[in-house]
Amino acid sequence: MSRMTILTEAELRKIVTLDLEAVACVENAFRALATLPVAMPPILRLDMPEQRGEVDVKTAYVPGIDGFAIKISPGFFDNPKLGLPSVNGMMVLLSAKTGLIEALLLDNGYLTDIRTAAAGAVAARHLSREDSKVAAIFGAGVQAGLQLEALRLVRPIEEARIWARDAARAEATAARLREKLGILVRAEPDAANAAAGADIIVTTTPSTEPLIKPGFVSAGQHITAMGSDAEHKNEIAPAILRMADLYVADSAKQTRRLGELHHAIEAGVMAADADVVELGQIIAGKPGRRSASDITIADLTGTGVQDTAIATLTRDRARAANAGTIFES
Amino acid sequence: MSRMTILTEAELRKIVTLDLEAVACVENAFRALATLPVAMPPILRLDMPEQRGEVDVKTAYVPGIDGFAIKISPGFFDNPKLGLPSVNGMMVLLSAKTGLIEALLLDNGYLTDIRTAAAGAVAARHLSREDSKVAAIFGAGVQAGLQLEALRLVRPIEEARIWARDAARAEATAARLREKLGILVRAEPDAANAAAGADIIVTTTPSTEPLIKPGFVSAGQHITAMGSDAEHKNEIAPAILRMADLYVADSAKQTRRLGELHHAIEAGVMAADADVVELGQIIAGKPGRRSASDITIADLTGTGVQDTAIATLTRDRARAANAGTIFES
Repeated sequence: MSRMTILTEAELRKIVTLDLEAVACVENAFRALATLPVAMPPILRLDMPEQRGEVDVKTAYVPGIDGFAIKISPGFFDNPKLGLPSVNGMMVLLSAKTGLIEALLLDNGYLTDIRTAAAGAVAARHLSREDSKVAAIFGAGVQAGLQLEALRLVRPIEEARIWARDAARAEATAARLREKLGILVRAEPDAANAAAGADIIVTTTPSTEPLIKPGFVSAGQHITAMGSDAEHKNEIAPAILRMADLYVADSAKQTRRLGELHHAIEAGVMAADADVVELGQIIAGKPGRRSASDITIADLTGTGVQDTAIATLTRDRARAANAGTIFES
Repeated sequence: MSRMTILTEAELRKIVTLDLEAVACVENAFRALATLPVAMPPILRLDMPEQRGEVDVKTAYVPGIDGFAIKISPGFFDNPKLGLPSVNGMMVLLSAKTGLIEALLLDNGYLTDIRTAAAGAVAARHLSREDSKVAAIFGAGVQAGLQLEALRLVRPIEEARIWARDAARAEATAARLREKLGILVRAEPDAANAAAGADIIVTTTPSTEPLIKPGFVSAGQHITAMGSDAEHKNEIAPAILRMADLYVADSAKQTRRLGELHHAIEAGVMAADADVVELGQIIAGKPGRRSASDITIADLTGTGVQDTAIATLTRDRARAANAGTIFES
């Protein structure tokens, strides 16, 4: 008999939120990725062009974590015409000792949202100035809000500007976050003005053209670019990677292929074989920011170790809270 | 809100059995594989050598089938020491129109057993003599029994011999099948004697050395080799592939890499670029057996299209029977 716990999105939203424990578990995962023999096979990808549909399957085994996640992420881009979301999906958590399925996390992408935002907090904690007070968020989707909340977990953010291509959505998001967080949040229709004077810039868009131009960036700023998870996406002008004092990747193997680094290499601004510092190395003790005037960049493409980390945290919380439905089969 | 059906192994065993409908759905899948633009990406494989553990994830999209399966198959080979099965796993069935998860099939490998046996029936139907009465089964595991049952769905089998490396297990399996099927089934400790005079030979072992020697094979026989699903496995002497009148693969791409064909190529008996007939082509009308004296071979390595076929059949049966538990999330 095998025994597993099934958790619905509503149950998951109750037991897992963006908090310092989620940030710590993602931080541990990045440390492991840079320092331990993690197994993270290439993404399994199935394309169904007739339906404008695709599915990615990701997994990673992290020594020292007793479970591992297999994440199934479908994207069907004609779904909105049917009144359905484009993106949904789930995670399966298996025991790393026995391979038995321990939990089915029917999250419709929610846990991915949390682990992605947590990575933003980890990057800010290790790369931004400790006194960072002003944030500029590019984008007005789910991650725009979550990334701002993530920054507030690790830095004394007092003010935020929201820029989005759709000014009305920027206004709505700013109003929502102002209400929710109780800090000054305003929409800023001019991208350069949004970035000017910000201590931390976070880009959360699916843009295919750089939003952050070299002239926007000034001494002391930290930039986290988390929108690019595919070859054609690009948020930061390649020249900024060269002018930065420190460029950090979540996974060098991935950012060389599909992150901001990939575009900087294509533009000839960075060497394809340049040594790249990974976030996990800095967590493990490699020097990061060296002065208050450094410009730092974190290039986040999303990794399977984050999924494994958040899925095991979720299982532990579900056990403690006695949440979910037990299935025996 | 998304809505899915969860089915346990016990529920699945009630609604899906090895029958002619299961055979027909696998036959359709093979036909599609050979004639339609099926998408079947390479297997995702995660290895955890410290635990002697591995996980395979397989999927395939078949145009014309409205769902597709993602199958998660863990194998943890120290589990028996803990009193647990080595192999378990599940299938996730998604809509090929929307990517929404329709069903979670917690089958612990049961549906794989059924679709694998069904492929044996498909091979026998298209390659063995219609009057085949005597079967020789090599192996004494779950597939040994299921393959014999599969043959009986499509051929008038009256007698079966069971050979296994472990003679006691062969005896036990023969007794069990005699009881269950009500035909003459006996254990035969000599492999050559088991094969002699059999109309159909089916090998179902994890052997790494050929069990079927050239001298065992005679005119008119059909051989299905289904044990080899990995590079190092080998059940049929390479010379038999050359002496056969017809060699048929479930997937030429796979048997060149990990089936019996792969060993025949390595042994220099078959050319690496030789034209290979696929089972689906014969189902679609290409000539198969041409005379009662032909020797035919089916080399089955297991394909993602079979998983997609059996998983969609399962969903349809579950709907019709109102089986399983509905989950909304």
